[in-house]
Amino acid sequence: MPSLPSLRLKPHADRRLRIGHLWVFANEVDIQRTPLTTFAPGALARLEDARGKTLGQVYVNPASLICARMLTRNAHASIDAAWFAERIRQALQLRERVYPGGFYRLLFGESDGVPGLVVDRYGDVLVAQSTTAGMDALRPVVETALQTALSPRGIYWRCDAPVRSLEGLEPEVEVRGDVPDAIEIVEAGRRFVAPLKTGQKTGWYFDQRDNRALVGQLAAGQRVLDVFSYIGGFGVTAAACGARSVTCLDASDTALEQAQANASRNNVTIDVRAGDARQSLEALAADKARFDLVVVDPPALIKRKKDVAAGTRHYQQLNRLAMELLAPNGLLLAASCSHHLTADAMRGALRKAAAESGRRMMVLAQRGAALDHPVHAAIPETEYLKAFLCSVDA
Amino acid sequence: MPSLPSLRLKPHADRRLRIGHLWVFANEVDIQRTPLTTFAPGALARLEDARGKTLGQVYVNPASLICARMLTRNAHASIDAAWFAERIRQALQLRERVYPGGFYRLLFGESDGVPGLVVDRYGDVLVAQSTTAGMDALRPVVETALQTALSPRGIYWRCDAPVRSLEGLEPEVEVRGDVPDAIEIVEAGRRFVAPLKTGQKTGWYFDQRDNRALVGQLAAGQRVLDVFSYIGGFGVTAAACGARSVTCLDASDTALEQAQANASRNNVTIDVRAGDARQSLEALAADKARFDLVVVDPPALIKRKKDVAAGTRHYQQLNRLAMELLAPNGLLLAASCSHHLTADAMRGALRKAAAESGRRMMVLAQRGAALDHPVHAAIPETEYLKAFLCSVDA
Repeated sequence: MPSLPSLRLKPHADRRLRIGHLWVFANEVDIQRTPLTTFAPGALARLEDARGKTLGQVYVNPASLICARMLTRNAHASIDAAWFAERIRQALQLRERVYPGGFYRLLFGESDGVPGLVVDRYGDVLVAQSTTAGMDALRPVVETALQTALSPRGIYWRCDAPVRSLEGLEPEVEVRGDVPDAIEIVEAGRRFVAPLKTGQKTGWYFDQRDNRALVGQLAAGQRVLDVFSYIGGFGVTAAACGARSVTCLDASDTALEQAQANASRNNVTIDVRAGDARQSLEALAADKARFDLVVVDPPALIKRKKDVAAGTRHYQQLNRLAMELLAPNGLLLAASCSHHLTADAMRGALRKAAAESGRRMMVLAQRGAALDHPVHAAIPETEYLKAFLCSVDA
Repeated sequence: MPSLPSLRLKPHADRRLRIGHLWVFANEVDIQRTPLTTFAPGALARLEDARGKTLGQVYVNPASLICARMLTRNAHASIDAAWFAERIRQALQLRERVYPGGFYRLLFGESDGVPGLVVDRYGDVLVAQSTTAGMDALRPVVETALQTALSPRGIYWRCDAPVRSLEGLEPEVEVRGDVPDAIEIVEAGRRFVAPLKTGQKTGWYFDQRDNRALVGQLAAGQRVLDVFSYIGGFGVTAAACGARSVTCLDASDTALEQAQANASRNNVTIDVRAGDARQSLEALAADKARFDLVVVDPPALIKRKKDVAAGTRHYQQLNRLAMELLAPNGLLLAASCSHHLTADAMRGALRKAAAESGRRMMVLAQRGAALDHPVHAAIPETEYLKAFLCSVDA
């Protein structure tokens, strides 16, 4: 039973936590009684309400606006390798149930009760991200727990997400064991190689798995355009599902080479086109190119709350350009991974894009991230990905 | 070019229509200039704004709160069989693209530009519903258009939805051509027979197609409970996808017999249990029955806005009972087809249900109706079905 310093909340600041949220904001702490400055970044503490009643255990970072995150409501738990192993066991059981086979997001931070920690599993290689000082401090026990649960060949700590700066942390990368530069992913029988060390995020976007399947269902016989294709997740899926043609657009020549290689791995061919998305879309329009199915899946265009207005216009503009390339009754899959952009705002941007291009739009489906990215019912921040499948009339 | 009486709006009442909505409410009409009482129920009119500028053509019903619905923004179109045939052509193109094979909701009212008309296609048999006086008046040309487009063996007008009473209409049923009592549906290779004349709604719930597929993906090896099973759409799908066991609950013995027959058609077996859902769930709990995957898909529990509070509690209670039957880390698919219940309110009810049963819930996916039920971007009423896939911890 650990003896921890206490972190006391102001009156009423426990309310959000009691209904399941895990975060404490700096202005919610009773700093007269428990000054944040007495905590080292990442230190564990016992969280208590304004009357001194224990709420659970948190890790603290006085340098962050989110100054503490709840690890457990059990005041007596030891936050050690066994504790993490149990979290991992639960998470693993869910993933193997929904996507058996060893390729998925194994741990999704707050949703899986491990705030600040994301682990993607690529068979026997794990790519882990810590985004907080508290989780950085726990990395040794996390590693032990991952070894116990999965005996991976290698663990790649890719702690370079920009969000670390909010915690005053530098980017850090560490290799444990054998981590290859690239790794093969098997998804619904299709094979992709993703660059673990030089690619985007953890190398592959597990979150779009079911949306790729949806595009695959609709791709047979269609002319498909994959905008922001990266290494061809959507485009190669469409080609493997019988698309008449596939064009992948991306700014990165390297990503497009990998997309081509992924196409070859699945015995299909794709066209690629390097360049800025807007300029490429405009050039395709000038060439009077037409597509039956367009995927627009940009990186987060809204990174901070103050960028919402400009970013929303950017989504609108990209999707308008995409709609203008659609043949009559074409389909658009428009995605946003900006958690500051609400689903309603995204839908509004698409409606305006349709109005601007003089076309009638229907929403056939609104989807989110795949099942290995569970949404914590009390933490809206865990719901970030929106994907709208739209039909766009002539 | 038709010469129609005009229906004039009050100032600013055109705003919602200009951004795409199709409805006019009775209090938005300038009844000094164009008294609603001069229109026969179902009469066509030219809709104009407060300055007399034409907005399009509507049908009118002075007896309804929604006193007019827009058919076209083209003032010169003739609303005849050729006009409907073009709407049908567009709708058919979309359906055959997303669900090739002839089994789907072909026309979904406002979303497909045919307010008040729903047509489900079961191969060469069509089941049509008209819910407004305006559409009732147009049924002869709709029939001609459907004949032109699809040459069906039979058309069954099942105009018995309770919503017709809002238009002052009686229930009506009519048979055109050869309409069998029951018909076989093929869905993802699985076969179901649905009762066209005596079943619920138009006989089959096309709207849950993709959610049935989702349950099928997760069913292998699981103990599955299908609450409000009707003729076994979810349960038989789960069994055909390798569920360890399937139990269907429904109040109707007839529906359960049909569910059994549907299981046999797919060479699987299911258990059935007749009775009230709540009582059956409580009895299963008393028997300490446990399931790995439970589907709760009740009929609309909230039919009118004033029933929202009581109905939301009803959803909460049913889903709490379902959660209490789940084995550790079980999955719940909780659906609501009440359009008065928002997705957020449904999610809240599920969160409370989890809290009441002392379990931790994560939302793995939030889904809607299938792709043949498009949502009209400007008409929120076209988005009615919500389905949450939840993981429920011990």
